[in-house]
Amino acid sequence: MFEQITILGSGLLGASLAMSIHHAKIAQSITIWARRKETVDLCSSKTWCQHGEENLEKSVIGSNLVIICTPVETIGGIIRQIAPYLEKGTLVTDVGSVKKQICLDCEEAMKSSEGFFIGSHPMAGSEKSGMDFASKELVNGKSCIITPMKDAPVKYIHKLEEFWKALKMIVFQFSPAEHDRAAAYFSHLPHLLASCLSRHLDTQDRNWKKISGNGLKDTTRIAEGDPLLWQQIFHMNKKEILASIAGWEKSLLEIKELLKGENQDELYNYLKIGANFRKELDK
Amino acid sequence: MFEQITILGSGLLGASLAMSIHHAKIAQSITIWARRKETVDLCSSKTWCQHGEENLEKSVIGSNLVIICTPVETIGGIIRQIAPYLEKGTLVTDVGSVKKQICLDCEEAMKSSEGFFIGSHPMAGSEKSGMDFASKELVNGKSCIITPMKDAPVKYIHKLEEFWKALKMIVFQFSPAEHDRAAAYFSHLPHLLASCLSRHLDTQDRNWKKISGNGLKDTTRIAEGDPLLWQQIFHMNKKEILASIAGWEKSLLEIKELLKGENQDELYNYLKIGANFRKELDK
Repeated sequence: MFEQITILGSGLLGASLAMSIHHAKIAQSITIWARRKETVDLCSSKTWCQHGEENLEKSVIGSNLVIICTPVETIGGIIRQIAPYLEKGTLVTDVGSVKKQICLDCEEAMKSSEGFFIGSHPMAGSEKSGMDFASKELVNGKSCIITPMKDAPVKYIHKLEEFWKALKMIVFQFSPAEHDRAAAYFSHLPHLLASCLSRHLDTQDRNWKKISGNGLKDTTRIAEGDPLLWQQIFHMNKKEILASIAGWEKSLLEIKELLKGENQDELYNYLKIGANFRKELDK
Repeated sequence: MFEQITILGSGLLGASLAMSIHHAKIAQSITIWARRKETVDLCSSKTWCQHGEENLEKSVIGSNLVIICTPVETIGGIIRQIAPYLEKGTLVTDVGSVKKQICLDCEEAMKSSEGFFIGSHPMAGSEKSGMDFASKELVNGKSCIITPMKDAPVKYIHKLEEFWKALKMIVFQFSPAEHDRAAAYFSHLPHLLASCLSRHLDTQDRNWKKISGNGLKDTTRIAEGDPLLWQQIFHMNKKEILASIAGWEKSLLEIKELLKGENQDELYNYLKIGANFRKELDK
């Protein structure tokens, strides 16, 4: 499917993608770029990396597909740096959780390039970070959102879709702006609430932890996610996230009023709607 | 350890306890009371139930330990009904998630009884409810809070502790009032936030569900819990829960301000504190 794929960054997602690509046999050669020499050497020792590279520009030369797997705030700078070195027809994508700003930055940077950029967001995060937790199964069966700009040529869109499908991902298309709005509600808000709850309980009596069970563990699991990664995501999508909080606060106000009141049926109905919605997520 | 144990109610926790007691061989005979005849018959057919009983009063006669496993709002009424039928020295406990009101009701009801009541709260819920999901492993290794009133005789406290320990639970003691305060923060608030998020996302574009992953699933899992059970818990502990929401809202306000501002280090620190707290929960 590809002669050479370059993956920029070897964290949880970068390494997992290399493993999946290797397993699916869709590239003759996988090049991985990492900032630190020790990481490059470590990657080079793996079966899923044919070439480890410390030099960013060199790492993309000769590749048909470049996947940027670095923290969201670094993506704009990286693409500006690699754009002049891309071969004609090279497809570039990323795995960032925020899309609008990244897609605008990348479109601008790619104007002078022979390649083409389309954003991706594989929904396969974890509260764990780093290569140690990487797995060829991480993306298997998960959703991947691709966010082509309006003028994206169909051949690149298809190529990107086929790539993610080859890794057994379920591919959906959103505009970058709608992606960010939806992600604010369905991904960033849940993370923010989990972090906020953990942050708050940290101020309470430690002895009270005894009165907690799997409910608290599940509810706060994602709060363990890499704080730097999430600080950047929150910052880049803050407008949409603040809007999602404002919307959510209406539902909080509603349950507070129900708690204060005596209408038990309405409180039951509120919880029932929530329970039904949650059941839907498992379908 | 016990000649006869009676379990009132055969839902997830009642049936799981019967299985654990049977497995741990700490009762010569297990009696289960259920409201519906079909449920009584179903219980009677199980190896972990020697006697199914439809008559509440009859079900407690001759028992050394009675465990009330019915919804929290029914416990007061049940104990008033069974109190006159308890033998001398019978220990009665419950598994309710709220303790202050229940312990007060039960203390009052037991004044005319030969038995003694001490509240329990095994931290072993699940988003699933009903006998179908019961398991002898449900309580294994989990915490169990017992909430003796000030004047509780030591022999009953020890007996109750030994019972839960025999089921491999880790036992802690709290006063009923402190239990409810701590539960509001570490158990009821997480549930309320999960329900509130599910309730809110239910109003959003269904297509946006595509942009969600395990984070949303984990964060909202407990919202799938039995709405009737939780409506009663929320109602019985509403004072403490409203206080926990008010405290939590300060942390929400803090992160909203951090999002609006430009101090990325402070946003990072906020998330880092939350991540560290979450890591502690797995220790």
